[in-house]
Amino acid sequence: MTSRTTVSEHTGPVPPADPGLYAEIQQFYARQVQLLGTEDIDSWSRTFAEDAVFEQETEPGRTFARGAPSHRRGRAAIAAAARGAVQQRREQKTVRRYLIGMLDVAPQDDGSVRTEYCAVLIQTGRGEPPVVHLSTTGRDLLVRERDAWQVRHRINSHDNKETQRG
Amino acid sequence: MTSRTTVSEHTGPVPPADPGLYAEIQQFYARQVQLLGTEDIDSWSRTFAEDAVFEQETEPGRTFARGAPSHRRGRAAIAAAARGAVQQRREQKTVRRYLIGMLDVAPQDDGSVRTEYCAVLIQTGRGEPPVVHLSTTGRDLLVRERDAWQVRHRINSHDNKETQRG
Amino acid sequence: MTSRTTVSEHTGPVPPADPGLYAEIQQFYARQVQLLGTEDIDSWSRTFAEDAVFEQETEPGRTFARGAPSHRRGRAAIAAAARGAVQQRREQKTVRRYLIGMLDVAPQDDGSVRTEYCAVLIQTGRGEPPVVHLSTTGRDLLVRERDAWQVRHRINSHDNKETQRG
Repeated sequence: MTSRTTVSEHTGPVPPADPGLYAEIQQFYARQVQLLGTEDIDSWSRTFAEDAVFEQETEPGRTFARGAPSHRRGRAAIAAAARGAVQQRREQKTVRRYLIGMLDVAPQDDGSVRTEYCAVLIQTGRGEPPVVHLSTTGRDLLVRERDAWQVRHRINSHDNKETQRG
Repeated sequence: MTSRTTVSEHTGPVPPADPGLYAEIQQFYARQVQLLGTEDIDSWSRTFAEDAVFEQETEPGRTFARGAPSHRRGRAAIAAAARGAVQQRREQKTVRRYLIGMLDVAPQDDGSVRTEYCAVLIQTGRGEPPVVHLSTTGRDLLVRERDAWQVRHRINSHDNKETQRG
Repeated sequence: MTSRTTVSEHTGPVPPADPGLYAEIQQFYARQVQLLGTEDIDSWSRTFAEDAVFEQETEPGRTFARGAPSHRRGRAAIAAAARGAVQQRREQKTVRRYLIGMLDVAPQDDGSVRTEYCAVLIQTGRGEPPVVHLSTTGRDLLVRERDAWQVRHRINSHDNKETQRG
Protein backbone atom coordinates (compact mmCIF):
# COMPACT_ATOMS: atom_id res chain seq x y z
CA MET A 1 0.00 0.00 0.00
CA THR A 2 2.96 2.38 0.17
CA SER A 3 4.57 1.94 -3.26
CA ARG A 4 3.52 4.54 -5.77
CA THR A 5 1.50 3.17 -8.66
CA THR A 6 1.29 4.87 -12.01
CA VAL A 7 -1.11 7.72 -12.02
CA SER A 8 -3.10 6.21 -14.85
CA GLU A 9 -4.15 3.43 -12.51
CA HIS A 10 -5.46 6.14 -10.27
CA THR A 11 -6.51 3.94 -7.41
CA GLY A 12 -5.20 4.12 -3.95
CA PRO A 13 -1.72 5.15 -3.09
CA VAL A 14 -1.31 8.14 -5.39
CA PRO A 15 -0.98 11.04 -2.96
CA PRO A 16 -3.69 13.68 -3.18
CA ALA A 17 -3.00 16.99 -4.86
CA ASP A 18 -1.85 19.69 -2.47
CA PRO A 19 -4.68 21.98 -1.31
CA GLY A 20 -3.55 24.92 -3.42
CA LEU A 21 -3.63 22.94 -6.64
CA TYR A 22 -6.86 21.21 -5.70
CA ALA A 23 -8.69 24.50 -5.07
CA GLU A 24 -7.28 25.92 -8.31
CA ILE A 25 -8.55 23.01 -10.37
CA GLN A 26 -11.95 23.08 -8.68
CA GLN A 27 -12.29 26.72 -9.64
CA PHE A 28 -11.05 26.01 -13.17
CA TYR A 29 -13.98 23.65 -13.66
CA ALA A 30 -16.44 26.03 -11.98
CA ARG A 31 -15.49 28.80 -14.39
CA GLN A 32 -15.32 26.52 -17.41
CA VAL A 33 -18.89 25.28 -16.94
CA GLN A 34 -20.12 28.79 -16.17
CA LEU A 35 -18.78 29.96 -19.52
CA LEU A 36 -20.75 27.18 -21.15
CA GLY A 37 -23.79 28.15 -19.06
CA THR A 38 -23.61 31.75 -20.25
CA GLU A 39 -23.09 30.43 -23.80
CA ASP A 40 -19.84 32.35 -24.16
CA ILE A 41 -18.31 29.74 -26.43
CA ASP A 42 -15.39 31.97 -27.47
CA SER A 43 -14.15 32.23 -23.89
CA TRP A 44 -15.08 28.62 -23.16
CA SER A 45 -13.10 27.30 -26.12
CA ARG A 46 -9.99 29.12 -24.85
CA THR A 47 -10.07 26.83 -21.82
CA PHE A 48 -8.98 24.12 -24.28
CA ALA A 49 -5.51 23.96 -25.83
CA GLU A 50 -5.25 24.82 -29.56
CA ASP A 51 -4.57 21.16 -30.34
CA ALA A 52 -6.91 19.72 -27.71
CA VAL A 53 -8.83 16.50 -28.25
CA PHE A 54 -12.35 16.02 -26.88
CA GLU A 55 -13.75 12.50 -27.07
CA GLN A 56 -17.28 11.50 -26.21
CA GLU A 57 -17.43 7.81 -25.30
CA THR A 58 -20.98 7.01 -26.27
CA GLU A 59 -23.07 4.64 -28.34
CA PRO A 60 -21.31 3.81 -31.62
CA GLY A 61 -22.33 6.00 -34.52
CA ARG A 62 -24.05 8.61 -32.45
CA THR A 63 -23.71 12.15 -33.71
CA PHE A 64 -24.32 15.31 -31.78
CA ALA A 65 -26.13 18.59 -32.44
CA ARG A 66 -25.47 19.95 -35.96
CA GLY A 67 -23.82 16.67 -36.87
CA ALA A 68 -20.79 17.13 -34.60
CA PRO A 69 -18.73 13.93 -34.35
CA SER A 70 -18.04 12.23 -31.03
CA HIS A 71 -14.29 12.74 -31.53
CA ARG A 72 -13.27 16.40 -31.90
CA ARG A 73 -9.72 17.39 -32.71
CA GLY A 74 -8.54 20.96 -32.19
CA ARG A 75 -10.09 23.97 -30.53
CA ALA A 76 -12.04 25.01 -33.61
CA ALA A 77 -13.81 21.65 -33.87
CA ILE A 78 -14.48 21.64 -30.13
CA ALA A 79 -15.97 25.13 -30.33
CA ALA A 80 -18.08 24.21 -33.37
CA ALA A 81 -19.63 21.26 -31.56
CA ALA A 82 -20.40 23.45 -28.53
CA ARG A 83 -21.94 26.15 -30.74
CA GLY A 84 -24.17 23.57 -32.33
CA ALA A 85 -25.34 22.31 -28.96
CA VAL A 86 -25.95 25.83 -27.65
CA GLN A 87 -27.91 26.72 -30.78
CA GLN A 88 -30.03 23.61 -30.43
CA ARG A 89 -30.85 24.36 -26.80
CA ARG A 90 -31.79 27.92 -27.70
CA GLU A 91 -34.27 26.62 -30.24
CA GLN A 92 -35.61 24.20 -27.63
CA LYS A 93 -35.68 27.02 -25.02
CA THR A 94 -33.74 24.79 -22.68
CA VAL A 95 -31.02 25.56 -20.13
CA ARG A 96 -28.34 22.95 -19.48
CA ARG A 97 -26.19 22.81 -16.36
CA TYR A 98 -23.05 20.74 -15.92
CA LEU A 99 -22.45 19.58 -12.39
CA ILE A 100 -18.96 18.25 -11.90
CA GLY A 101 -18.22 16.42 -8.68
CA MET A 102 -16.05 13.78 -7.07
CA LEU A 103 -12.99 15.46 -8.53
CA ASP A 104 -9.69 13.66 -8.20
CA VAL A 105 -6.55 15.56 -9.17
CA ALA A 106 -3.27 13.76 -9.86
CA PRO A 107 -0.28 16.02 -10.58
CA GLN A 108 2.15 14.62 -13.16
CA ASP A 109 5.94 14.90 -13.16
CA ASP A 110 5.92 17.23 -16.17
CA GLY A 111 3.68 19.81 -14.46
CA SER A 112 0.49 18.68 -16.15
CA VAL A 113 -2.42 17.32 -14.17
CA ARG A 114 -4.70 14.36 -14.72
CA THR A 115 -8.21 14.60 -13.35
CA GLU A 116 -11.12 12.24 -13.01
CA TYR A 117 -14.64 13.28 -12.09
CA CYS A 118 -18.37 12.71 -12.44
CA ALA A 119 -20.34 15.15 -14.58
CA VAL A 120 -24.11 15.20 -14.46
CA LEU A 121 -26.08 17.25 -17.00
CA ILE A 122 -29.33 18.77 -15.82
CA GLN A 123 -31.69 20.38 -18.33
CA THR A 124 -34.64 22.66 -17.75
CA GLY A 125 -37.17 23.94 -20.25
CA ARG A 126 -39.15 27.13 -19.66
CA GLY A 127 -41.79 26.51 -17.03
CA GLU A 128 -40.75 22.87 -16.84
CA PRO A 129 -39.27 20.76 -14.05
CA PRO A 130 -35.61 19.86 -14.51
CA VAL A 131 -34.54 16.52 -15.94
CA VAL A 132 -31.28 14.66 -15.47
CA HIS A 133 -30.17 14.53 -19.07
CA LEU A 134 -26.97 12.52 -18.83
CA SER A 135 -24.56 11.04 -16.29
CA THR A 136 -20.93 10.81 -17.35
CA THR A 137 -17.40 10.25 -16.11
CA GLY A 138 -14.71 12.66 -17.25
CA ARG A 139 -10.97 12.15 -17.53
CA ASP A 140 -8.92 15.20 -18.44
CA LEU A 141 -5.29 16.01 -19.06
CA LEU A 142 -4.79 19.64 -18.06
CA VAL A 143 -1.76 21.73 -18.96
CA ARG A 144 -0.78 25.14 -17.73
CA GLU A 145 -0.56 27.74 -20.48
CA ARG A 146 0.92 31.00 -19.23
CA ASP A 147 -1.09 31.60 -16.01
CA ALA A 148 -4.17 29.53 -16.83
CA TRP A 149 -5.08 25.86 -17.05
CA GLN A 150 -6.26 24.37 -20.33
CA VAL A 151 -7.75 21.01 -21.25
CA ARG A 152 -5.43 19.18 -23.61
CA HIS A 153 -7.34 15.91 -23.71
CA ARG A 154 -10.83 15.15 -22.43
CA ILE A 155 -12.61 11.83 -22.46
CA ASN A 156 -16.24 12.13 -21.50
CA SER A 157 -17.63 8.65 -20.96
CA HIS A 158 -21.43 8.38 -21.04
CA ASP A 159 -22.95 6.07 -18.44
CA ASN A 160 -25.64 4.91 -20.86
CA LYS A 161 -23.25 3.59 -23.52
CA GLU A 162 -23.28 -0.07 -24.52
CA THR A 163 -19.93 -1.04 -23.04
CA GLN A 164 -20.19 0.39 -19.57
CA ARG A 165 -17.29 0.52 -17.22
CA GLY A 166 -15.79 2.71 -14.55
CA MET B 1 -6.00 37.74 -21.43
CA THR B 2 -3.80 39.19 -18.68
CA SER B 3 -5.61 42.42 -17.78
CA ARG B 4 -7.91 42.09 -14.83
CA THR B 5 -11.56 42.47 -15.69
CA THR B 6 -14.16 43.57 -13.20
CA VAL B 7 -15.25 40.80 -10.94
CA SER B 8 -18.86 41.20 -11.96
CA GLU B 9 -17.92 40.00 -15.41
CA HIS B 10 -16.56 36.96 -13.70
CA THR B 11 -15.15 35.31 -16.79
CA GLY B 12 -11.59 34.44 -17.37
CA PRO B 13 -8.72 36.37 -15.97
CA VAL B 14 -9.96 36.97 -12.43
CA PRO B 15 -7.50 34.98 -10.33
CA PRO B 16 -8.99 32.14 -8.29
CA ALA B 17 -9.49 32.56 -4.57
CA ASP B 18 -6.60 31.30 -2.48
CA PRO B 19 -7.11 27.75 -1.20
CA GLY B 20 -7.74 28.83 2.39
CA LEU B 21 -10.57 31.14 1.42
CA TYR B 22 -11.97 28.66 -1.08
CA ALA B 23 -12.17 25.85 1.49
CA GLU B 24 -13.71 28.25 4.02
CA ILE B 25 -16.46 29.30 1.62
CA GLN B 26 -17.15 25.71 0.57
CA GLN B 27 -17.68 24.82 4.21
CA PHE B 28 -19.81 27.91 4.76
CA TYR B 29 -22.24 26.63 2.13
CA ALA B 30 -22.09 23.06 3.43
CA ARG B 31 -23.11 24.23 6.90
CA GLN B 32 -25.68 26.70 5.63
CA VAL B 33 -27.59 24.07 3.68
CA GLN B 34 -27.29 21.58 6.53
CA LEU B 35 -29.01 24.07 8.84
CA LEU B 36 -31.81 24.29 6.29
CA GLY B 37 -31.84 20.48 6.06
CA THR B 38 -32.25 20.14 9.82
CA GLU B 39 -34.93 22.87 9.67
CA ASP B 40 -33.03 25.00 12.18
CA ILE B 41 -34.22 28.24 10.64
CA ASP B 42 -33.03 30.38 13.57
CA SER B 43 -29.43 29.33 13.04
CA TRP B 44 -29.83 29.34 9.28
CA SER B 45 -31.14 32.90 9.23
CA ARG B 46 -28.08 34.07 11.17
CA THR B 47 -26.00 33.10 8.14
CA PHE B 48 -27.62 36.14 6.49
CA ALA B 49 -26.80 39.73 7.42
CA GLU B 50 -29.48 41.68 9.33
CA ASP B 51 -30.14 43.77 6.23
CA ALA B 52 -29.63 40.99 3.69
CA VAL B 53 -31.59 40.80 0.45
CA PHE B 54 -32.65 37.45 -1.04
CA GLU B 55 -34.06 37.59 -4.57
CA GLN B 56 -35.60 34.69 -6.41
CA GLU B 57 -35.42 35.24 -10.16
CA THR B 58 -38.40 33.24 -11.31
CA GLU B 59 -41.57 33.48 -13.35
CA PRO B 60 -43.22 36.87 -12.91
CA GLY B 61 -45.86 36.94 -10.20
CA ARG B 62 -44.91 33.66 -8.65
CA THR B 63 -45.31 33.50 -4.89
CA PHE B 64 -43.77 30.99 -2.55
CA ALA B 65 -44.99 28.90 0.39
CA ARG B 66 -47.21 30.90 2.77
CA GLY B 67 -47.34 33.72 0.26
CA ALA B 68 -43.69 34.72 0.61
CA PRO B 69 -42.64 37.18 -2.09
CA SER B 70 -39.79 36.47 -4.51
CA HIS B 71 -37.89 39.51 -3.19
CA ARG B 72 -37.13 39.35 0.57
CA ARG B 73 -35.53 42.23 2.38
CA GLY B 74 -34.00 41.75 5.82
CA ARG B 75 -33.24 38.68 7.90
CA ALA B 76 -36.74 38.51 9.39
CA ALA B 77 -38.39 38.32 5.96
CA ILE B 78 -35.83 35.77 4.78
CA ALA B 79 -36.47 33.63 7.85
CA ALA B 80 -40.25 33.91 7.44
CA ALA B 81 -40.09 32.65 3.86
CA ALA B 82 -37.88 29.73 4.92
CA ARG B 83 -40.23 28.86 7.80
CA GLY B 84 -43.15 28.81 5.39
CA ALA B 85 -41.32 26.47 3.06
CA VAL B 86 -40.23 24.17 5.89
CA GLN B 87 -43.78 24.05 7.24
CA GLN B 88 -45.14 23.19 3.80
CA ARG B 89 -42.65 20.35 3.33
CA ARG B 90 -43.51 18.99 6.78
CA GLU B 91 -47.16 18.84 5.80
CA GLN B 92 -46.19 17.16 2.53
CA LYS B 93 -43.83 14.80 4.43
CA THR B 94 -41.07 15.74 2.03
CA VAL B 95 -37.34 16.23 2.55
CA ARG B 96 -35.53 18.79 0.41
CA ARG B 97 -31.78 18.83 -0.19
CA TYR B 98 -29.80 21.69 -1.67
CA LEU B 99 -26.78 20.62 -3.64
CA ILE B 100 -24.47 23.50 -4.38
CA GLY B 101 -21.69 22.92 -6.87
CA MET B 102 -19.43 24.58 -9.42
CA LEU B 103 -18.56 27.22 -6.85
CA ASP B 104 -16.54 30.19 -8.01
CA VAL B 105 -15.22 32.56 -5.36
CA ALA B 106 -14.02 36.07 -6.26
CA PRO B 107 -12.53 38.07 -3.37
CA GLN B 108 -13.28 41.81 -3.51
CA ASP B 109 -10.99 44.66 -2.54
CA ASP B 110 -13.11 45.53 0.51
CA GLY B 111 -12.79 42.05 2.03
CA SER B 112 -16.17 40.84 0.85
CA VAL B 113 -16.50 37.93 -1.54
CA ARG B 114 -18.65 37.37 -4.61
CA THR B 115 -19.63 33.82 -5.41
CA GLU B 116 -21.38 32.11 -8.26
CA TYR B 117 -22.62 28.54 -8.20
CA CYS B 118 -25.20 26.01 -9.34
CA ALA B 119 -27.78 24.86 -6.81
CA VAL B 120 -29.94 21.84 -7.50
CA LEU B 121 -32.88 21.02 -5.21
CA ILE B 122 -33.72 17.37 -4.73
CA GLN B 123 -36.92 16.38 -2.96
CA THR B 124 -37.95 13.05 -1.52
CA GLY B 125 -41.30 12.02 -0.11
CA ARG B 126 -41.64 9.15 2.37
CA GLY B 127 -41.20 5.88 0.56
CA GLU B 128 -40.86 7.74 -2.74
CA PRO B 129 -38.01 8.04 -5.23
CA PRO B 130 -36.29 11.44 -5.26
CA VAL B 131 -37.19 14.09 -7.81
CA VAL B 132 -35.09 16.96 -9.07
CA HIS B 133 -37.29 19.82 -7.97
CA LEU B 134 -35.42 22.82 -9.34
CA SER B 135 -32.15 23.79 -10.98
CA THR B 136 -30.85 27.27 -10.23
CA THR B 137 -27.82 29.52 -10.45
CA GLY B 138 -26.83 31.46 -7.35
CA ARG B 139 -24.89 34.69 -7.06
CA ASP B 140 -24.01 35.83 -3.54
CA LEU B 141 -22.24 38.73 -1.93
CA LEU B 142 -20.71 37.45 1.30
CA VAL B 143 -19.37 39.63 4.09
CA ARG B 144 -17.39 38.66 7.13
CA GLU B 145 -19.14 39.50 10.40
CA ARG B 146 -16.90 38.93 13.40
CA ASP B 147 -15.46 35.46 12.68
CA ALA B 148 -18.20 34.16 10.39
CA TRP B 149 -19.35 34.72 6.82
CA GLN B 150 -22.83 36.03 6.12
CA VAL B 151 -24.86 36.44 2.94
CA ARG B 152 -25.56 40.08 2.30
CA HIS B 153 -27.16 39.68 -1.09
CA ARG B 154 -28.33 36.52 -2.81
CA ILE B 155 -29.80 36.20 -6.28
CA ASN B 156 -31.17 32.75 -6.94
CA SER B 157 -32.00 32.48 -10.62
CA HIS B 158 -34.36 29.63 -11.57
CA ASP B 159 -33.48 27.78 -14.76
CA ASN B 160 -37.14 27.36 -15.68
CA LYS B 161 -37.97 31.07 -15.73
CA GLU B 162 -39.21 32.76 -18.89
CA THR B 163 -36.14 34.86 -19.60
CA GLN B 164 -33.39 32.35 -19.26
CA ARG B 165 -29.76 33.30 -19.28
CA GLY B 166 -26.47 32.30 -17.74
CA MET C 1 -22.21 32.57 19.07
CA THR C 2 -18.54 32.54 20.10
CA SER C 3 -18.40 29.62 22.58
CA ARG C 4 -17.37 26.36 21.01
CA THR C 5 -20.12 23.77 20.96
CA THR C 6 -19.43 20.07 20.80
CA VAL C 7 -18.65 18.88 17.34
CA SER C 8 -21.50 16.41 17.39
CA GLU C 9 -23.89 19.34 17.41
CA HIS C 10 -22.17 20.44 14.25
CA THR C 11 -24.01 23.69 13.84
CA GLY C 12 -22.50 27.09 13.83
CA PRO C 13 -19.41 27.99 15.72
CA VAL C 14 -17.27 24.92 15.07
CA PRO C 15 -14.37 26.34 13.06
CA PRO C 16 -13.99 24.96 9.54
CA ALA C 17 -11.30 22.42 8.79
CA ASP C 18 -8.06 23.94 7.56
CA PRO C 19 -7.76 23.97 3.77
CA GLY C 20 -5.18 21.19 3.67
CA LEU C 21 -7.37 18.78 5.58
CA TYR C 22 -10.48 19.82 3.68
CA ALA C 23 -8.89 19.16 0.28
CA GLU C 24 -7.53 15.84 1.54
CA ILE C 25 -10.94 14.66 2.69
CA GLN C 26 -12.61 15.83 -0.53
CA GLN C 27 -10.15 13.73 -2.50
CA PHE C 28 -10.63 10.80 -0.14
CA TYR C 29 -14.31 10.72 -1.05
CA ALA C 30 -13.61 11.26 -4.76
CA ARG C 31 -11.34 8.23 -4.82
CA GLN C 32 -13.58 6.13 -2.62
CA VAL C 33 -16.59 6.54 -4.90
CA GLN C 34 -14.44 6.01 -7.99
CA LEU C 35 -13.35 2.64 -6.62
CA LEU C 36 -17.01 1.76 -6.22
CA GLY C 37 -17.68 3.06 -9.74
CA THR C 38 -14.98 0.81 -11.21
CA GLU C 39 -16.37 -2.04 -9.09
CA ASP C 40 -12.99 -2.61 -7.44
CA ILE C 41 -14.52 -3.74 -4.16
CA ASP C 42 -11.25 -5.07 -2.76
CA SER C 43 -9.63 -1.65 -2.93
CA TRP C 44 -12.86 0.07 -1.93
CA SER C 45 -13.25 -2.05 1.18
CA ARG C 46 -9.75 -1.06 2.30
CA THR C 47 -11.03 2.50 2.63
CA PHE C 48 -12.94 1.16 5.65
CA ALA C 49 -11.28 0.17 8.93
CA GLU C 50 -11.14 -3.58 9.72
CA ASP C 51 -13.74 -3.08 12.44
CA ALA C 52 -15.78 -0.43 10.64
CA VAL C 53 -19.54 -0.14 11.00
CA PHE C 54 -21.76 0.89 8.07
CA GLU C 55 -25.39 1.66 8.92
CA GLN C 56 -28.12 2.37 6.41
CA GLU C 57 -30.91 4.36 8.03
CA THR C 58 -33.85 3.29 5.92
CA GLU C 59 -37.34 1.83 6.13
CA PRO C 60 -37.54 -0.78 8.90
CA GLY C 61 -36.98 -4.32 7.72
CA ARG C 62 -35.58 -3.38 4.36
CA THR C 63 -32.84 -5.66 3.06
CA PHE C 64 -30.38 -4.92 0.33
CA ALA C 65 -29.01 -6.79 -2.69
CA ARG C 66 -28.23 -10.45 -1.91
CA GLY C 67 -29.97 -10.09 1.45
CA ALA C 68 -27.38 -7.75 2.98
CA PRO C 69 -28.59 -6.25 6.25
CA SER C 70 -28.89 -2.50 6.78
CA HIS C 71 -26.35 -2.68 9.63
CA ARG C 72 -22.94 -4.06 8.55
CA ARG C 73 -20.20 -4.71 11.07
CA GLY C 74 -16.61 -5.22 9.93
CA ARG C 75 -14.87 -4.79 6.60
CA ALA C 76 -15.80 -8.25 5.37
CA ALA C 77 -19.53 -7.64 5.85
CA ILE C 78 -19.24 -4.20 4.27
CA ALA C 79 -17.44 -5.68 1.26
CA ALA C 80 -19.99 -8.49 0.94
CA ALA C 81 -22.88 -6.04 0.80
CA ALA C 82 -21.07 -3.97 -1.85
CA ARG C 83 -20.29 -7.07 -3.92
CA GLY C 84 -23.94 -8.04 -3.83
CA ALA C 85 -25.00 -4.60 -5.03
CA VAL C 86 -22.36 -4.56 -7.79
CA GLN C 87 -23.43 -8.02 -8.95
CA GLN C 88 -27.05 -6.96 -9.05
CA ARG C 89 -26.29 -3.87 -11.12
CA ARG C 90 -24.23 -5.96 -13.54
CA GLU C 91 -27.21 -8.23 -14.08
CA GLN C 92 -29.40 -5.17 -14.57
CA LYS C 93 -26.77 -3.61 -16.89
CA THR C 94 -26.92 -0.47 -14.82
CA VAL C 95 -24.22 2.00 -13.78
CA ARG C 96 -24.53 3.75 -10.44
CA ARG C 97 -22.77 7.00 -9.54
CA TYR C 98 -22.41 8.44 -6.05
CA LEU C 99 -22.31 12.20 -5.94
CA ILE C 100 -21.17 13.50 -2.59
CA GLY C 101 -21.55 17.18 -1.93
CA MET C 102 -22.02 19.81 0.78
CA LEU C 103 -19.16 18.26 2.71
CA ASP C 104 -18.53 19.52 6.21
CA VAL C 105 -15.36 18.38 7.95
CA ALA C 106 -14.94 18.69 11.72
CA PRO C 107 -11.53 17.67 13.07
CA GLN C 108 -11.65 15.97 16.48
CA ASP C 109 -9.18 16.32 19.33
CA ASP C 110 -7.91 12.76 18.91
CA GLY C 111 -6.93 13.29 15.26
CA SER C 112 -10.02 11.67 13.82
CA VAL C 113 -12.46 13.62 11.69
CA ARG C 114 -16.24 13.77 11.63
CA THR C 115 -17.89 14.56 8.32
CA GLU C 116 -21.39 15.29 7.18
CA TYR C 117 -22.51 15.41 3.56
CA CYS C 118 -25.25 14.81 1.02
CA ALA C 119 -24.92 11.80 -1.25
CA VAL C 120 -27.12 11.43 -4.31
CA LEU C 121 -27.15 8.17 -6.26
CA ILE C 122 -27.70 8.41 -10.00
CA GLN C 123 -28.32 5.26 -12.02
CA THR C 124 -28.19 4.74 -15.76
CA GLY C 125 -29.17 1.68 -17.75
CA ARG C 126 -27.76 0.99 -21.20
CA GLY C 127 -29.32 3.35 -23.71
CA GLU C 128 -31.51 4.80 -20.97
CA PRO C 129 -31.75 8.27 -19.44
CA PRO C 130 -30.35 8.56 -15.91
CA VAL C 131 -32.59 8.40 -12.87
CA VAL C 132 -32.01 9.81 -9.41
CA HIS C 133 -32.11 6.60 -7.44
CA LEU C 134 -31.73 7.84 -3.89
CA SER C 135 -30.97 10.98 -1.91
CA THR C 136 -29.18 10.49 1.41
CA THR C 137 -27.28 12.25 4.15
CA GLY C 138 -24.00 10.73 5.30
CA ARG C 139 -22.22 11.08 8.62
CA ASP C 140 -18.78 9.50 8.86
CA LEU C 141 -16.10 9.08 11.49
CA LEU C 142 -12.78 8.95 9.65
CA VAL C 143 -9.51 7.79 11.18
CA ARG C 144 -6.01 8.00 9.78
CA GLU C 145 -4.37 4.61 9.32
CA ARG C 146 -0.72 4.93 8.36
CA ASP C 147 -0.85 7.53 5.57
CA ALA C 148 -4.45 7.03 4.47
CA TRP C 149 -7.90 7.89 5.78
CA GLN C 150 -10.39 5.14 6.56
CA VAL C 151 -14.06 5.15 7.45
CA ARG C 152 -14.55 3.78 10.94
CA HIS C 153 -18.26 4.50 11.22
CA ARG C 154 -20.69 5.52 8.50
CA ILE C 155 -24.37 6.34 8.90
CA ASN C 156 -26.12 6.71 5.58
CA SER C 157 -29.57 8.15 6.19
CA HIS C 158 -32.06 7.72 3.35
CA ASP C 159 -34.29 10.71 2.66
CA ASN C 160 -37.25 8.49 1.85
CA LYS C 161 -37.35 6.69 5.20
CA GLU C 162 -40.40 6.89 7.45
CA THR C 163 -38.87 9.01 10.21
CA GLN C 164 -37.27 11.79 8.25
CA ARG C 165 -34.98 14.28 9.82
CA GLY C 166 -32.00 16.44 9.03
